Amino acid sequence: MADMRNIINVGLLGYGVVGQGVFKNIEKNKEVLKKRLGVSFVIKYIAVKNLALERQVEVSPEILTDDPNLVINNKDIDVVCELIGGTDAALQFTEQALKNGKIVITANKALVCHHGQHLFDLAFRHGGHYLFEASVAGGIPIIKTINEALIANKFSLIYGIFNGTSNYILTRMEKEGLAFEQILKDARELGYVESDEALDLDGLDAAHKVIILTFLAHGIWVKIEDIICEGIRDISREDISFAKDAGYRIKLIGLISRDFSKNNLSVRLHPALIPCNESIAKVNDVYNGISVTGDVVGTTIYTGRGAGQDATSSSVISDIADSAALLQSNDISNFRLLKYKKNNGELDLDLIEQSKLEGRYYIRFNVKDEEGVLAKISKNFAKHHISFASVIQKELCSDNTLIMVTTHQTNEYSIMVACDEVNVFPAVIKKPSVIRIFNPKDYLE
Amino acid sequence: MADMRNIINVGLLGYGVVGQGVFKNIEKNKEVLKKRLGVSFVIKYIAVKNLALERQVEVSPEILTDDPNLVINNKDIDVVCELIGGTDAALQFTEQALKNGKIVITANKALVCHHGQHLFDLAFRHGGHYLFEASVAGGIPIIKTINEALIANKFSLIYGIFNGTSNYILTRMEKEGLAFEQILKDARELGYVESDEALDLDGLDAAHKVIILTFLAHGIWVKIEDIICEGIRDISREDISFAKDAGYRIKLIGLISRDFSKNNLSVRLHPALIPCNESIAKVNDVYNGISVTGDVVGTTIYTGRGAGQDATSSSVISDIADSAALLQSNDISNFRLLKYKKNNGELDLDLIEQSKLEGRYYIRFNVKDEEGVLAKISKNFAKHHISFASVIQKELCSDNTLIMVTTHQTNEYSIMVACDEVNVFPAVIKKPSVIRIFNPKDYLE
Repeated sequence: MADMRNIINVGLLGYGVVGQGVFKNIEKNKEVLKKRLGVSFVIKYIAVKNLALERQVEVSPEILTDDPNLVINNKDIDVVCELIGGTDAALQFTEQALKNGKIVITANKALVCHHGQHLFDLAFRHGGHYLFEASVAGGIPIIKTINEALIANKFSLIYGIFNGTSNYILTRMEKEGLAFEQILKDARELGYVESDEALDLDGLDAAHKVIILTFLAHGIWVKIEDIICEGIRDISREDISFAKDAGYRIKLIGLISRDFSKNNLSVRLHPALIPCNESIAKVNDVYNGISVTGDVVGTTIYTGRGAGQDATSSSVISDIADSAALLQSNDISNFRLLKYKKNNGELDLDLIEQSKLEGRYYIRFNVKDEEGVLAKISKNFAKHHISFASVIQKELCSDNTLIMVTTHQTNEYSIMVACDEVNVFPAVIKKPSVIRIFNPKDYLE
Repeated sequence: MADMRNIINVGLLGYGVVGQGVFKNIEKNKEVLKKRLGVSFVIKYIAVKNLALERQVEVSPEILTDDPNLVINNKDIDVVCELIGGTDAALQFTEQALKNGKIVITANKALVCHHGQHLFDLAFRHGGHYLFEASVAGGIPIIKTINEALIANKFSLIYGIFNGTSNYILTRMEKEGLAFEQILKDARELGYVESDEALDLDGLDAAHKVIILTFLAHGIWVKIEDIICEGIRDISREDISFAKDAGYRIKLIGLISRDFSKNNLSVRLHPALIPCNESIAKVNDVYNGISVTGDVVGTTIYTGRGAGQDATSSSVISDIADSAALLQSNDISNFRLLKYKKNNGELDLDLIEQSKLEGRYYIRFNVKDEEGVLAKISKNFAKHHISFASVIQKELCSDNTLIMVTTHQTNEYSIMVACDEVNVFPAVIKKPSVIRIFNPKDYLE
């Protein structure tokens, strides 16, 4: 056995919530990491925008710099952790570091989602690596699981909860019977909502993660504009309460389902009614949960904190430890990265169009309380061969009423057309609100 | 980038349930493995004891042999999968293969538990590897998770369900209200019970797994004779039904808890009453579930099939894929194995003695229905400062009665002494049956 490297020099780009977590936890568990890996991690430089900013996790001023080149272009630094976020400076810095042959580690789901292939190619070309465990589901090691542990499997269904903030809001709406806006206020105060609120509330953050997992599981990059991406802003207390009575829970789910006989793929991010006895339906608060069904392993389920300083830094540090292995190993073929090239070739795989989706649906109609309005609505749906499995009509105030229905199996095109038609009925106050019903059993043989 | 190896030659030792699963699933997903890894796995030889045996998964007779040397001492074979089981021939073959510098993969929990350190040392010395993902919890990637994904963490609590057969029996006992012996009969017919029934029913199989995880998480090997290892043979319908009414479920749990301030460790395998709202309490049938609490990541939970041909082979194939990476990487330092040497040094870590355990307990007394028997029992327990939190007395047949109690917080020594004393009371028909109450919240700050 030849000598091995005893010290791995790490540079951080960014020292916000995650950066401080990485620094704090490497310091905290220095001894145990050394014992387990036989190497020490030394944080050489931390590049920040504003040196003057006060930070919770203190750090010696000598390693703090506002010159990112001291990290990116520093010959002594082996591993660069990009913890800036966004796709501007982060992209530019990552490119430069990879061109320098460095191992770059990121928690940046937007960057991996939009530029992953380009960055993998750069890493491959220059003998570096691009590791991103922290970009999906915080502390849950789902990247390593799909990429390594379950590599023997073809994945018929991967679905789950990928955004802690929206799960927190939905959980509290259900438990306390409060409206979306009320809980949102609390979530903002707790610092749970990203400054760009659309990321959490319109599903974009979770969609980025689903797109990354789609690439890992099926070898193709889908575009965010090509998939259904709907957030939780329109979910009402009444939806949640109806769902509960019917044995469902409303969760914001990401879903990747593949039909191997037809060789098509459905990638979606939207709220759904899930049977409340499913494990994923029981994942509450800021937790994430992912159910992975492979043709060899069957269904395995992973839950844990999907965000936050510590959980995310656990995954970043796991990537730093993997870097240590890569740096020792003298990997002449860059074997690990090769999979991201080879894998990227399933061009014959069709993404199912939204209008061709099939399933059951929940629909809420806000209507004037007029004679025969339910009859008119159901007649119109029947015209499109959509029959209702359950109906509840609920008094609101003097003139208005809510009609909430679940349908039997149908297709989404019919639902869309029927809703558009109903929307112009004089008695209909606003556009019918549609939530898909998702029962994983329908997706598994 | 230099050229890489396109073909990895694999040899199997044993062609039973798991061996056939590995062969079948590598064949089945050959294309996808090649696409993902850029290499092909070729099963060169399968060594079996009896060539004449008929097997469900057919294999070309040219690769079947009854000479294990064609696998172990074959220069063309890179990776040897030991799927024989037991600790006799399996040990001898593994030693020889490791001495030849091969990568050996195993699903053999008994062998890793009893000879793991010796085999890691052999692998290290001869430049090979010893991989064992399939040895714990079947298809759940818990080895990789503890070893790699959660490497940043100190583990205060790891607990869960590690034996599918006993979980199947307990689940059906609860759901159908039947006795242990009745369900055991079914489990035997379904082929769920190992031929050495003690492995499943007396907790040995699960204890092997818990010992392996203890080593990975805390760097010490505990001996099976030094830990509490109790199976499920004494669990009665009444225990399960009492537990249910009190808000608990009885599960056979493995538990590794470490108190970092006192630097002690508790490693145990026994039935326990778990609060029924805990995720692990909801893991039913043949499924395994593991809850891992780390100081950085928080609590993460993993569930999936813990045994069976396919789930286990998913993990074996994942190790074969990791072997491919190791073979490409020219790992001059044998870095990955180093952790098994370095790690093995926490000599100051104390294993808590059974008598020093603290907690709450459930006790069932089978007694003659005589006046004052409950009073006598409680008086005796009070003498040892044990007070009851709840009591139920249940009529059995004419003369006998069951008294079932839960205690408040106490220590195990007092429980043992009090039970021994009560056992000689004339009214007591058989030794009181004690089951620990486990609430994970008591183990977490």
